[in-house]
Amino acid sequence: MQIALVRNKIIPLGELESVYLDRGLFFGDGVYEVIRSYNGRIFALDEHLQRFAGSLAAVDIVSVDIEKIRSDIMRAFEAAGIANAKIYFHITRGSALRSHVWDDGLEPNFFLTVTELEDSTQVKTEGIAVSIHPDWRWKRCDIKSLNLLPNVLARRDASQKGCEEAILVDESGLITEGAGSAFFAVFGTKLQTAPLTANILPSITRKYVIKAGENIGLEVIEESLTPKQAGSADELFIAVTTKDIVPVVKFDDNTIGDGKPGRYTKLLVEEFHLFTV
Amino acid sequence: MQIALVRNKIIPLGELESVYLDRGLFFGDGVYEVIRSYNGRIFALDEHLQRFAGSLAAVDIVSVDIEKIRSDIMRAFEAAGIANAKIYFHITRGSALRSHVWDDGLEPNFFLTVTELEDSTQVKTEGIAVSIHPDWRWKRCDIKSLNLLPNVLARRDASQKGCEEAILVDESGLITEGAGSAFFAVFGTKLQTAPLTANILPSITRKYVIKAGENIGLEVIEESLTPKQAGSADELFIAVTTKDIVPVVKFDDNTIGDGKPGRYTKLLVEEFHLFTV
Repeated sequence: MQIALVRNKIIPLGELESVYLDRGLFFGDGVYEVIRSYNGRIFALDEHLQRFAGSLAAVDIVSVDIEKIRSDIMRAFEAAGIANAKIYFHITRGSALRSHVWDDGLEPNFFLTVTELEDSTQVKTEGIAVSIHPDWRWKRCDIKSLNLLPNVLARRDASQKGCEEAILVDESGLITEGAGSAFFAVFGTKLQTAPLTANILPSITRKYVIKAGENIGLEVIEESLTPKQAGSADELFIAVTTKDIVPVVKFDDNTIGDGKPGRYTKLLVEEFHLFTV
Repeated sequence: MQIALVRNKIIPLGELESVYLDRGLFFGDGVYEVIRSYNGRIFALDEHLQRFAGSLAAVDIVSVDIEKIRSDIMRAFEAAGIANAKIYFHITRGSALRSHVWDDGLEPNFFLTVTELEDSTQVKTEGIAVSIHPDWRWKRCDIKSLNLLPNVLARRDASQKGCEEAILVDESGLITEGAGSAFFAVFGTKLQTAPLTANILPSITRKYVIKAGENIGLEVIEESLTPKQAGSADELFIAVTTKDIVPVVKFDDNTIGDGKPGRYTKLLVEEFHLFTV
């Protein structure tokens, strides 16, 4: 008899709940998004849904109704009643006995949480330290997939070094992005970040940071940096949905500027917040 | 109130079953093995457990008792009573609210199934067609992790081309391995396969194939092949736990040999089976 052993109990395979057969679990076969609200208003929902649709298409998960997702998000957000909320959701290809090749009839699994955003006042005021780690990720980081083990391991490494984020460096010695963030440097009045390629997530926060940079008169340069260049920048920061702009004051043992959040970084934070009100 | 939306229902986050918070689902944060039995006897259990322990250590999942895993495997295998069984198991880092960095106190989740092996007589007798696909996987394929989306997408591509397996080609134009198998070529009396690096799984079947090759007097060469070289081989085959050796008779539109399983491949199948009785 075919069986499963789960939670230390042997059961007939046919009695196994479908959640244990989620292809998200067997293969990381799914895609996700993280959205946030500012004071009761969800930020950049359309852009996130558009990127989500792109991720779904890229991994060939079809028959997902994006408008249903939108209404589920709104329904859950309203039910939660959290002003500054973090909304996480993923869709996996569905549940089935483990097999790389999937049946086209599978029903995708949708999962969502609405939680309180952690307070980021301190990291935004004082800035954070970051360390570097080899970029071990797959070659389609433009897809926001559930294959995040390299990100998890890089972040763990950073954490063990007392850092808040790992900045990933590819085989050619160039910085791609953070394990969970976009990465920016300021040199004089130039704002620099890596260009969008298959090795980088098309970050929505990144897009708004670039817009904010242009608004305050910075020259935006989309060109990759080496760790050495980053270590000698006037200012550094990361950009991530849940905290928007977070100053980086220490880069892999180099103190950035005077060790406090930089002048343009602070201006960018203010400018960014104009988008969110 | 913090909430989850799951199976189309909104529930308080605190009431969510822990299986929905499995880090295996959020991040593919886990490792796995596939073992098989031949006529009631599990093959190469020690090697698989040793590799599993290596994968766990590589991703820093600690406090797993490998002897408990071994006894769970035996207990489940005996309960199933399937002579030619496929035993799949994984361990994830545990269940927790989604956060890249984990708490050291997490309890790993163990999951196992014992199922009937699919009959592979036909593919072993007639051989299979394979196609090539870019190797999009991460840079630590020596770890048998749950981050398998690139493998899934490559296998899907092969399937759409009427092929049984995708042979992965890295950025320098060299074949690494199959999406779910090791890959071998025969040139005269030479048996060739890629060397073990961080980009290749240390396949246990591969190890036994090499031993079988030496036993029948083939010269074993661990050197990477280009698709062009593979297409002109005298014989090709893949090696995978569930089916051991499967002849490849068509490689990306090139017919291999006379389009039938090759002479040495058949000898290797016989020699391999001596290990399993």
